[in-house]
Formats: sequence, structure tokens, C-alpha cells
Amino acid sequence: MKHIGALVFPKFELLDLCGPLQMFGVLKENFSISLVAADKGSVPSNQHVEVIATDSFTDHKPYDILCVPGGIGTRDQVSNPKLIDWLKHSAQKAEYVLSVCTGSSLLARSGVLDGFKATTNKAAFDWVRSQGPKVNWQAKARWVEDGKFFTSSGVTAGMDMALGFIAHFRGDAKARKVAKWSEYQWHDDPNWDPFAAIHGLVKD
Amino acid sequence: MKHIGALVFPKFELLDLCGPLQMFGVLKENFSISLVAADKGSVPSNQHVEVIATDSFTDHKPYDILCVPGGIGTRDQVSNPKLIDWLKHSAQKAEYVLSVCTGSSLLARSGVLDGFKATTNKAAFDWVRSQGPKVNWQAKARWVEDGKFFTSSGVTAGMDMALGFIAHFRGDAKARKVAKWSEYQWHDDPNWDPFAAIHGLVKD
Repeated sequence: MKHIGALVFPKFELLDLCGPLQMFGVLKENFSISLVAADKGSVPSNQHVEVIATDSFTDHKPYDILCVPGGIGTRDQVSNPKLIDWLKHSAQKAEYVLSVCTGSSLLARSGVLDGFKATTNKAAFDWVRSQGPKVNWQAKARWVEDGKFFTSSGVTAGMDMALGFIAHFRGDAKARKVAKWSEYQWHDDPNWDPFAAIHGLVKD
Repeated sequence: MKHIGALVFPKFELLDLCGPLQMFGVLKENFSISLVAADKGSVPSNQHVEVIATDSFTDHKPYDILCVPGGIGTRDQVSNPKLIDWLKHSAQKAEYVLSVCTGSSLLARSGVLDGFKATTNKAAFDWVRSQGPKVNWQAKARWVEDGKFFTSSGVTAGMDMALGFIAHFRGDAKARKVAKWSEYQWHDDPNWDPFAAIHGLVKD
């Protein structure tokens, strides 16, 4: 049993959070899930749906697996030392660190991705890259695994990455069982990424 | 601008709710979103993530578009007259009614689907069918549109149905814009459904 801590902050992207947590949540025998924010209580997503953080930064709880969503709210949070400091310490302690979409901008600002390969949303690629000049950014990737870091491309890519993480962590059969249960056609190749070309980051 | 009312109840399936709301939430110029439950406040999903209902049944608010998620919690709610009565009246008043996964069991029990074509989760097909013997259940479909009802297959099928609804409601180009924004490979054919055969409901 591993304990997942999923970060939330105002205007996080709803599916960046809920896509991976849906996949992990099917495996109740393997994963427990807590939402963590600066303060306990309601946190509004960019889609206005509000979720409840049951843990706060000042609880200093350790998490085996840290999940970091993106969303327009990251534009404010990259300059929030309270969040970036918490993220740096929590990421250093975690066994695995996962991000979806522009969530990697927060990891990049905390410095923990320096020297590692990572990816992010393809429409916001240049901005995210500017938040971590020492990160080895990958323009074409559905998700990237490097050491303990699993970073995914935009929004729905988080589901593919989560299944990739489950395959890495608990075996391919378990990932396929979750995909089948969710009636999901898993893009199981981390190099599948038509959106890099659509956004002009690569030629094809 | 259309107002979406999304039903939540204990142990709703997280992505059944958040997949479609992610897609609608990108189009802030077209859709506003409220969560509605028996009582205002925190409602836990089957994945333990809690969301906040800002509207209650007793508010009797009208919604242009009603969204009904599924999840293991539907097994209790099909026998909850308070929820089924609210759903019947709200569905009758709504311009469109959308369901994901086993959410169609609740619509079926309210009687509003009688005589209409509909679909549901393929692993729970027989149970859902038993909740509405007068519904024209479709075994092989990613989603089904009939009159004002859009019903989808399991969990991730809700995202494909939501994009299909956006295409119906605001045009194909807008649906494709949302899919691109979400880096989503939209299954845009409502007849695409490999899971019907996987679960033995059809031969291929």
C-alpha cells in the first residue's frame, strides 16, 4: 500500500488531478489518496468544481507518491515560495513524483527536476521551459520517465502516464486491467505524441 | 450561456463527473457548472476525493443541461426516492440530459428514459438494464444520442460523449478545439466500442 499525496491550488486543471487519481483509485489495494494544499478545505479548480484538501502544507506529512497537476493557476504558484518550498521538500522525500501538464513548471521552479528529462503541455511548452532552464525538456513525448520522476504532456496525457506508472510499479497486466475497467484505450507508448507537431515543436 | 447541473452522490465515480466537466469547463463562454446533491457540502467519490455540492435538491434550481455520473454509489441511489424524484423532475425540465457509465441506471429508474435508446457501462450492462426494462438499451456504443438524452458507456467514454455533445450543440470545430486543448485523441464515432465484445455483449 502506497500513500499518494496530490497537490491542489486555486485554478488547478480538473482533469490533470482527476485523470490519474481515477486510475489509481481503482486499485484500492495498492494506493490510498489524500489531497494537500496550503490550507485544509475547499480548493476551486479552473473548471469551478471545488475539491477538499484534507492535508495542509504545515502538516508536513510524507507521501510515497506525489502528484502535481497543472492548470492556469500554476502561473501564480511558480512565484509562491510557500508552495515551492513545500514541493521541494515533499518531492525530495517521496519515492516517486508525478506531474501532469504544466504541473512540471512547479517541479522545475523547485529545482528538483534539474538534470532530469521531463515534458509538459505542448501549448505552454516555452513558458514551462523558462521555469527550469537546467531541465532536459523533451518536446515530443506523451510522458517521460526519468529516475523517480514521471512527467506527462497536457491534461488527458496524465491518464496515459498514470497507467504507465502502474505498469512500472505493479506490472503491465494490472495497468491493462485498470484501462479495461475504465473502458479506456490506453496510449501505452510514451513516445506517441501528435500534439508536439500540432503545436509546431517538432516537424512530424 | 447554458447552465450545467451535475449530480453528485456518495461513491460517485470521479472521472464520470470530471471527464465531461473538464471538456465543458474549457468553454467558459458557453457553459457554467454547478454541482448538486441531496445536501450542500462535501460529497465523497468512490476514489475518496471529495467535491463540494453548491446546490441541494431542495433548492429546486432548473438546469439547462443535467449531467449524471455513475459509480458504485448508484447501487444505493436507485432505491433512494428523494434522489430519483429530484432526477425525474429535473430531467423533465432540462433541455438536455447526459449520463456517464452506470449513471443511466438512475435515469432509467426515474422512468424518463422509457422508450428511448440508451447505453451504459459494459461490465455492468445486465444490472443497469434491469433498472429500466422499457429502455431501448444499446449494447455496442461509445455513446447514444436520442432526443434530448446523451448516454455514454463506462468512465472514460464520458469524455467522448461530452465532445459529441459539444459538436451537436456548438459545432464540430469547437469540439475539436477542446480536444486539441486537452491533448485528447477524441473517439468521435459513437459506434466505436471494443468493450462490448470484450465483455461478451456482442460477437465483435
